[in-house]
Amino acid sequence: MIKWLKQKLVLTIFVCASCLASSAQQISKLQMTQVKRGYGMFIHFGLNTFNQIEWSDGKLPLSSYNPDRLDPDSWVKIAKEAGFKYVILVTKHHEGFALWDSKYTDYDVAGTPVKTDVVAEVAKACKKYGLELGLYYSLWDRYEKTHDLKDPKPYVDFMKNQLTELLTNYGQVCELWFDGAWAKNDEDWNIPEVYKHIKSLQPNCLVTVNHTISIDGKPGTTRAPVDQQKGDKIRFWPVDFRSKDPNLARWDDPKVFDHQGKEVYLMFEHTLCLSNRWNWFQKRGNVPPRELDELEELFYWTTANDNIMILNVPPDEHGQIKTLEKNRIFELADRLGIRGGGKLPAGPTNLSFKMSAIPTNTSAGKGQEITNINDYSLETYWTAGDSTTSVEIDLLETKAINRVSIFEQPNDINLPDGFSTLKKFHVKQFSVELLLNGKWETVFMGDQIGACKIIRLPNVFNTRKVRLNILRSDAIPSIQHIGISNDTQKKYRK
Amino acid sequence: MIKWLKQKLVLTIFVCASCLASSAQQISKLQMTQVKRGYGMFIHFGLNTFNQIEWSDGKLPLSSYNPDRLDPDSWVKIAKEAGFKYVILVTKHHEGFALWDSKYTDYDVAGTPVKTDVVAEVAKACKKYGLELGLYYSLWDRYEKTHDLKDPKPYVDFMKNQLTELLTNYGQVCELWFDGAWAKNDEDWNIPEVYKHIKSLQPNCLVTVNHTISIDGKPGTTRAPVDQQKGDKIRFWPVDFRSKDPNLARWDDPKVFDHQGKEVYLMFEHTLCLSNRWNWFQKRGNVPPRELDELEELFYWTTANDNIMILNVPPDEHGQIKTLEKNRIFELADRLGIRGGGKLPAGPTNLSFKMSAIPTNTSAGKGQEITNINDYSLETYWTAGDSTTSVEIDLLETKAINRVSIFEQPNDINLPDGFSTLKKFHVKQFSVELLLNGKWETVFMGDQIGACKIIRLPNVFNTRKVRLNILRSDAIPSIQHIGISNDTQKKYRK
Repeated sequence: MIKWLKQKLVLTIFVCASCLASSAQQISKLQMTQVKRGYGMFIHFGLNTFNQIEWSDGKLPLSSYNPDRLDPDSWVKIAKEAGFKYVILVTKHHEGFALWDSKYTDYDVAGTPVKTDVVAEVAKACKKYGLELGLYYSLWDRYEKTHDLKDPKPYVDFMKNQLTELLTNYGQVCELWFDGAWAKNDEDWNIPEVYKHIKSLQPNCLVTVNHTISIDGKPGTTRAPVDQQKGDKIRFWPVDFRSKDPNLARWDDPKVFDHQGKEVYLMFEHTLCLSNRWNWFQKRGNVPPRELDELEELFYWTTANDNIMILNVPPDEHGQIKTLEKNRIFELADRLGIRGGGKLPAGPTNLSFKMSAIPTNTSAGKGQEITNINDYSLETYWTAGDSTTSVEIDLLETKAINRVSIFEQPNDINLPDGFSTLKKFHVKQFSVELLLNGKWETVFMGDQIGACKIIRLPNVFNTRKVRLNILRSDAIPSIQHIGISNDTQKKYRK
Repeated sequence: MIKWLKQKLVLTIFVCASCLASSAQQISKLQMTQVKRGYGMFIHFGLNTFNQIEWSDGKLPLSSYNPDRLDPDSWVKIAKEAGFKYVILVTKHHEGFALWDSKYTDYDVAGTPVKTDVVAEVAKACKKYGLELGLYYSLWDRYEKTHDLKDPKPYVDFMKNQLTELLTNYGQVCELWFDGAWAKNDEDWNIPEVYKHIKSLQPNCLVTVNHTISIDGKPGTTRAPVDQQKGDKIRFWPVDFRSKDPNLARWDDPKVFDHQGKEVYLMFEHTLCLSNRWNWFQKRGNVPPRELDELEELFYWTTANDNIMILNVPPDEHGQIKTLEKNRIFELADRLGIRGGGKLPAGPTNLSFKMSAIPTNTSAGKGQEITNINDYSLETYWTAGDSTTSVEIDLLETKAINRVSIFEQPNDINLPDGFSTLKKFHVKQFSVELLLNGKWETVFMGDQIGACKIIRLPNVFNTRKVRLNILRSDAIPSIQHIGISNDTQKKYRK
């Protein structure tokens, strides 16, 4: 017994000394492994898949989970071909349903008609195809009884037990992604203890809790990554990286945040929905995926500056990734040059950031200023003062450019199903002009911009000024961002 | 004098025996030179350019022709970079204005503020850049007085004089393109004499008269190339190739037509407008060019089967090709792999032709039958019976495919300027499904089809059936054509 205690003590000291999140301004070696991965496939699959719902309440019958062609091997095979470096599997969503046979709940795959341990199958496939495995686990659990007890400890123990299963039975886990912290007081999850438990089992597993950063370290003051300031308080500690689903980080994303007066380096993992309708679980009908141009630009944006992107590609109720989704991520891989694997590319340098932007008209809307059009955020936008308008960007000196990317801000329309969102875009005709040898010349005309339009010019042009003209629009248009760049030199993420 | 007569006689015999259009079912060596060229740039420039008009009446003042940066060298340089093999320059349009200093008219460049002989400059540039030179010449002449005399001979002599200038002062001319024959009786142009005159000067120059083919060889029975039947009468003779601006030939375009009971081989030269608004002369403002997908598919279609395409790229009132147009033809060259020159590609084999096509609904419109959707014509179309609809194509046996191209038929709206046309397309959301292992799978979803949408699938799929679903449309949609193919093997024009 004394020997055992000694061992435990040694282990605890070891964990504290080398494996807990480092309180350092610089990125750690362990964090670097995640930055290097860079691009992961986020897999939502579970009871919701079979019930056409995004969030459920723990009351859906286990019998409804009934994939007739369940094939987790194919998911990972597809991930490999699409150039992803790892997968993050949703092992348990908010309803509490476990995708593995857990000793600690009866609300799991073992109680369904198809008892396959999906975590095991995905883990096996990851080994087979050479991808790393990360796991998503919802703190919030609408099935588990201990979750709602006044004393938080029994539920923390429950989580630790489930995490022990996940971290001991399926080989190496590169990331743990905790979600749903809003369901209780922050401290009730006892993240320090849970984190320590994880590291004792898998020292190299990186951990996050969704909504990592806030202004004063308390709920209700959560900041989207786009608002996060250097030195903002870390709300959940310890963690190894930040998350704030589904927001996008600013380009000048600060990495250094505050934990009890100490500066800590935390990169940001972006969670992106492939669906253009904002569905994370696959729905029975076909849902259009995001367009290729948008995905390409989002890839560059979200994997830049030590940040990371996981793209949600959810299997359907047969247990298969739909051909439609598969095709889109393969198309993206072809665009990025990572079909079947390979070094992740970086986007070209955006020359438009913070340059002078002058519109012919502009709305008086607060927070819709013209400076938003080339600020460091993809989440802010400029709103025009009329349905036709122009914006002139002055690069201050002549630059060689061959690429302009334009993001239109849609009106989001909530669809009657209660979870889908339709993006409505307004621009119907536009042109791009460059100032060439003192004269404005139109270099491109197009009809819709949509979420994102990348214009690749067939030559490099030397210009100081770029003008976007919105020639026709069926409502007042808003533009999130105009990027101006030169992609003649292929670049890679570091 | 006798010596001179003798020489003339010998020359005439020589011309008749070897240079006149051959009455043969097979393509001649001379005709093969044109087929081999395959892809030309059609240049409209003249008085109309400066007066925002398509056709003028011979009364526009010469002073209005006043390009301030005239640069024909750059036109041909651009043509070369865009992969064209030759140019066809409009030397005189219907208004009679000659782009060279003609002894036989005062309505020419010599009487304008900018006296540059444009034909000479283009010819010089063609030699410089290694492109061949073809010339367009309007038979119809609204300025020349002899044109309207009761006796047609003086005007024929006038034309012969001008053609002598064009065919003796500017080096080798590969093609002569006659337009506007509708202005008089066919025989009044005396094409036999004009043709003989051309061949006496340049035996290797190929000749066409627009609206070459009719049913009985008479005007009013002109057939578009899409209607032309084997053995249809040749209306203008002699000629070396057919034309019928701006129509498109059928895929099974017959080449053998009738001249007085003899079968004659005549390939078809397509004239295509780059402008999406149907403007042949450049207008002051910017006019959107056709989309890249449409141009790519039209290139394959119009240069197939021994046919030829000339694409209209008109300089503007400064005497420059606008950057917008230049960019689009360079983009097209990049797509086709002919930037700067190179062997012309051929499109992939269209597996959809004449296969069974079954719609879920269809209009009762005569001439709008479903069979039009995959017939040999791009000018016929099918009209749906509702704004949502599906069409199922059965390839009869399983084929390996990776490419689907869809052409939507627009409503053409005439714009108030009297010459521009706006194409209005209706489809707002669509999907493509394939029958894979007995199940329909969606392989693509998109919003607009527009003039043409090429869907390149990231993998080859083995399927027997392809289904187009129009999921949303703002009016009853019409589809011209669905092409289904496999482009994994790069092919070239013969």
